[in-house]
Amino acid sequence: MTNQIRRVVIVGGTHGNELTGIYLIKKFERMPKLIKRFTFESCTLLANPKASEIGRRYVDTDLNRCFQRSFLDNSSLSSYEAQRAKAIYLTFGTGGNLEADLVVDLHTTTSNMRLTIILASKHPFYLWLAAYLTYINSNVKVFYSPQKTLENPYLDSICKFGCTIEVGAVAQGVLDATLFQQTEELVHTILDYVEAYNQGTPPRVKDTLTIYQDIRTIDYPRNEVGEIQAMIHPRLQFRDYEALHPGEPLFLTFDGEEIVYEGDSTVYPVFINEAAYYEKGIAMCITQQFQEILSF
Amino acid sequence: MTNQIRRVVIVGGTHGNELTGIYLIKKFERMPKLIKRFTFESCTLLANPKASEIGRRYVDTDLNRCFQRSFLDNSSLSSYEAQRAKAIYLTFGTGGNLEADLVVDLHTTTSNMRLTIILASKHPFYLWLAAYLTYINSNVKVFYSPQKTLENPYLDSICKFGCTIEVGAVAQGVLDATLFQQTEELVHTILDYVEAYNQGTPPRVKDTLTIYQDIRTIDYPRNEVGEIQAMIHPRLQFRDYEALHPGEPLFLTFDGEEIVYEGDSTVYPVFINEAAYYEKGIAMCITQQFQEILSF
Repeated sequence: MTNQIRRVVIVGGTHGNELTGIYLIKKFERMPKLIKRFTFESCTLLANPKASEIGRRYVDTDLNRCFQRSFLDNSSLSSYEAQRAKAIYLTFGTGGNLEADLVVDLHTTTSNMRLTIILASKHPFYLWLAAYLTYINSNVKVFYSPQKTLENPYLDSICKFGCTIEVGAVAQGVLDATLFQQTEELVHTILDYVEAYNQGTPPRVKDTLTIYQDIRTIDYPRNEVGEIQAMIHPRLQFRDYEALHPGEPLFLTFDGEEIVYEGDSTVYPVFINEAAYYEKGIAMCITQQFQEILSF
Repeated sequence: MTNQIRRVVIVGGTHGNELTGIYLIKKFERMPKLIKRFTFESCTLLANPKASEIGRRYVDTDLNRCFQRSFLDNSSLSSYEAQRAKAIYLTFGTGGNLEADLVVDLHTTTSNMRLTIILASKHPFYLWLAAYLTYINSNVKVFYSPQKTLENPYLDSICKFGCTIEVGAVAQGVLDATLFQQTEELVHTILDYVEAYNQGTPPRVKDTLTIYQDIRTIDYPRNEVGEIQAMIHPRLQFRDYEALHPGEPLFLTFDGEEIVYEGDSTVYPVFINEAAYYEKGIAMCITQQFQEILSF
């Protein structure tokens, strides 16, 4: 069967200060039976060991922005992460010596993203998988972020199928036991789904799926030298995936002034106040909510 | 009056990823009127500008462990933070050219410490100040950590009086608007107290004060190479300052086993799951609760 998933690679520590994935990978490497299924091989990968060792997001640059194919082909890039990206691609990427069919990249976030699965496409494989995950656990949310650039920079793009899991809210450098257990459960549910998919009996449990589609990002208000001038408004903090209506507060300046959302329709912000996005110029991502109809 | 407080220095950014203090200092520097009082001078200090710029706790070493007098006198120490400590001491420390009488060092923590004031001594000045702060805001907690070593390594030890403020829970690298505003309020209350103290009319509003006295620290269970083997138990997470009884859970191993507290009396853990303390071998600090009777 050419459509089968023959190898799944579960990835942790793409960012070295996101401990849940790192310690889950260590657990799976200690107890490989946990991720073993009959119809495919499960591999594990600690993606950025140096960053994990020093407990930082990255050493030289964000590994999860290094997977553009032109970067991978560029032998002059010498950052630690560029080299890691190349090694990972040559191992698990398309044509690699342990080519995977599915990558599951485990992340955490300081935003209240619950158990988010990020999809870059609406391929039926993803939609049915996401529908099953939300059916098993109502805490699972589906963030659809269509590929914006010609070349995808994310680790989960290295092979045929890939998804990123974002779990939070949890501080960088911290293990939250509840979220650790929920992430592990989610990985098992994904592996079970793949097993059923390979056996030709993927569970089809819903006919609609709520999807939050990435529209654009909003940066913090900044001054002429780039310093932020306001904070996420207390009424928005931890309110990821909740409706934001025009005129409702987005930011609070350090002097206590409110800055409101000036759009003309209701939106659903996510990745609100993610620590790693201050340097990327992102205070939140704005999404629209859709009901995707699944066709059998 | 020799007992007067003539200069107060408000410090932020001792740790470069604790944004509340950094942005409060920037605000005060932009609007110095806010911290101006009649009977003393208020100064501000961004303690570790290089670490603040890169958003990390420190560049070479933890600045808030560099203020032992023997370190300050040791001209061979060349780390960035050792040099900063020396410069700060020579400016605001005892005998310095802008010698302060009170240091207020603003920190944040991933633990649920609310608005904690840390005291290294039970000098009446501190006890009355702490009593006033808890009276104004019941969210203020008093952590008494008697000096354990001959030489105090903390920044707040550089002059006659000093205290450290720990506000949380907030992730590293994140601004929480509510906690920002609460921290600013707390600074104003401290300055108002000092003003009344200098005028000979310090408010005496209570005759007892609840104090949590540092007894010892507990590390994570670790294996022979130092890797942690368990997480803070979900029932303990964010429960700083709450009673922990013998037999109640402390940790959860990655395999789901509970590890319980085996002490013989009720204690009150604080600094539970502080991100920066993983590398220091501290999962939490154990305190005992006391009612301190204040004498008029």
